[in-house]
Amino acid sequence: MRELDLVEWIKRQKNTRGIGDDCYIRGNLVFTTDLTVEGVHFRRTDKPEFVGQKTLARGLSDIAAMGADPRFCLLSLARPKWADDKWVKAFFRGVLKLNVPLTGGDLSSASELVADIVVCGETPAGKALRRDTAKPGDHIYVSGRLGANARDGYSRMPKPRLELGRKLRGRASACMDLSDGLSIDLHRLCIASAVAASLDQIPVAKGATIEQALHGGEDYELLFTSSKPLKLPGIFHIGNVVKGKAGLITLNGNQLRPAGFEHFR
Amino acid sequence: MRELDLVEWIKRQKNTRGIGDDCYIRGNLVFTTDLTVEGVHFRRTDKPEFVGQKTLARGLSDIAAMGADPRFCLLSLARPKWADDKWVKAFFRGVLKLNVPLTGGDLSSASELVADIVVCGETPAGKALRRDTAKPGDHIYVSGRLGANARDGYSRMPKPRLELGRKLRGRASACMDLSDGLSIDLHRLCIASAVAASLDQIPVAKGATIEQALHGGEDYELLFTSSKPLKLPGIFHIGNVVKGKAGLITLNGNQLRPAGFEHFR
Repeated sequence: MRELDLVEWIKRQKNTRGIGDDCYIRGNLVFTTDLTVEGVHFRRTDKPEFVGQKTLARGLSDIAAMGADPRFCLLSLARPKWADDKWVKAFFRGVLKLNVPLTGGDLSSASELVADIVVCGETPAGKALRRDTAKPGDHIYVSGRLGANARDGYSRMPKPRLELGRKLRGRASACMDLSDGLSIDLHRLCIASAVAASLDQIPVAKGATIEQALHGGEDYELLFTSSKPLKLPGIFHIGNVVKGKAGLITLNGNQLRPAGFEHFR
Repeated sequence: MRELDLVEWIKRQKNTRGIGDDCYIRGNLVFTTDLTVEGVHFRRTDKPEFVGQKTLARGLSDIAAMGADPRFCLLSLARPKWADDKWVKAFFRGVLKLNVPLTGGDLSSASELVADIVVCGETPAGKALRRDTAKPGDHIYVSGRLGANARDGYSRMPKPRLELGRKLRGRASACMDLSDGLSIDLHRLCIASAVAASLDQIPVAKGATIEQALHGGEDYELLFTSSKPLKLPGIFHIGNVVKGKAGLITLNGNQLRPAGFEHFR
């Protein structure tokens, strides 16, 4: 079962609610959790400060996607023997570098390293950006050129678009972050909003291929929609929301199949 | 570095706050995260419903320790190949069985199974029970006989003491849950409160040894203190908080060294 199918199955069960967006919204607070797994999201040979900072930055990208301000985080760390005290301290220094108060967490031994970051953010109540609120006719934007991280072998540090997210409150009709790749993430946004999308131009990072820009993943840019044209520095108009089969995406008239980097496969 | 030393090191860093209790307290909300790791907290041969229910029950025990009511949870699951769709669905059924709304989480592949549960609870503001507020002269109690889980090879399902936790609001001077063993958990409470403890009797579960009751871990009973004697069904008076070297515990006059089940070693 693919991740998307498992999430759909979970949503159908009793005692679940609010599942499927970048964060869970409760009043003026939003909550996200993100796993960072050895061999999936980083290599054992990566610098521990880098791994720590990336762990939190991935969570902050979800906070940015909601248009929220980060308030605090908790970190759970399952630690294998190879991650000695020096490594773990440097990892925590990487987490703390981003100036989000660390307020708790859990520690365990394990045979491979798994970190789970929990981030709580805040927006004015009712102002959180969602992915299920795009409407036919809306313009579609991304916050930067795509494919750079795939081009560089996923060695780049995510730069959470917190400032842009804040600016999009009250302006964007829907928003999410690009973690798994434009084709699959836009597909998810369209499914959630019960709309289709027609794309006409993709901003490709210098030296990256169009495939890397469409399916590469780990861009951590924002993907957002607006009923009115938006003039903001550094953003790219890539197409429009249209009526049609929920989740169907076309690029210059040809169907674009969702084929992003999906951890759960 | 032992878990306790690593936590102390983390608390000394910039950008940390509120670390060291069962939950982080923010206004009327409390937050906890708990890792459940294959080979540490469960065996691959355990029933998946059991593992799922235990994953959440461990978090709920922390919520009980704060005197809070659970409000919602998020679950991150790093899933190895052996955990097939049937296993994962049964695992989620175990989580959902406890009637706490599941509102989000994350999924990833991994080579061993790691689950991280996040639970948010609520108390009247300022009423959360803490572990750093015990005072010399207080009575010390536990909520049941100890050592049963160690006696049974850690096969028992934790029963979070949520109802008792609620009753202790405004009554207990300090509280925490017994997850790693009475000797180490009481040591932590005493360190946090800058007090010592003098114990005189330990309620040992039928068929368990005194060592299992003192150091066995995974009892998930509440350990709490009160300035006045408490009359509540099923609780046991085990001794008193005293002035002295922070963290020092004696049992019938002899020093009791903290020797609980410590995952991080």
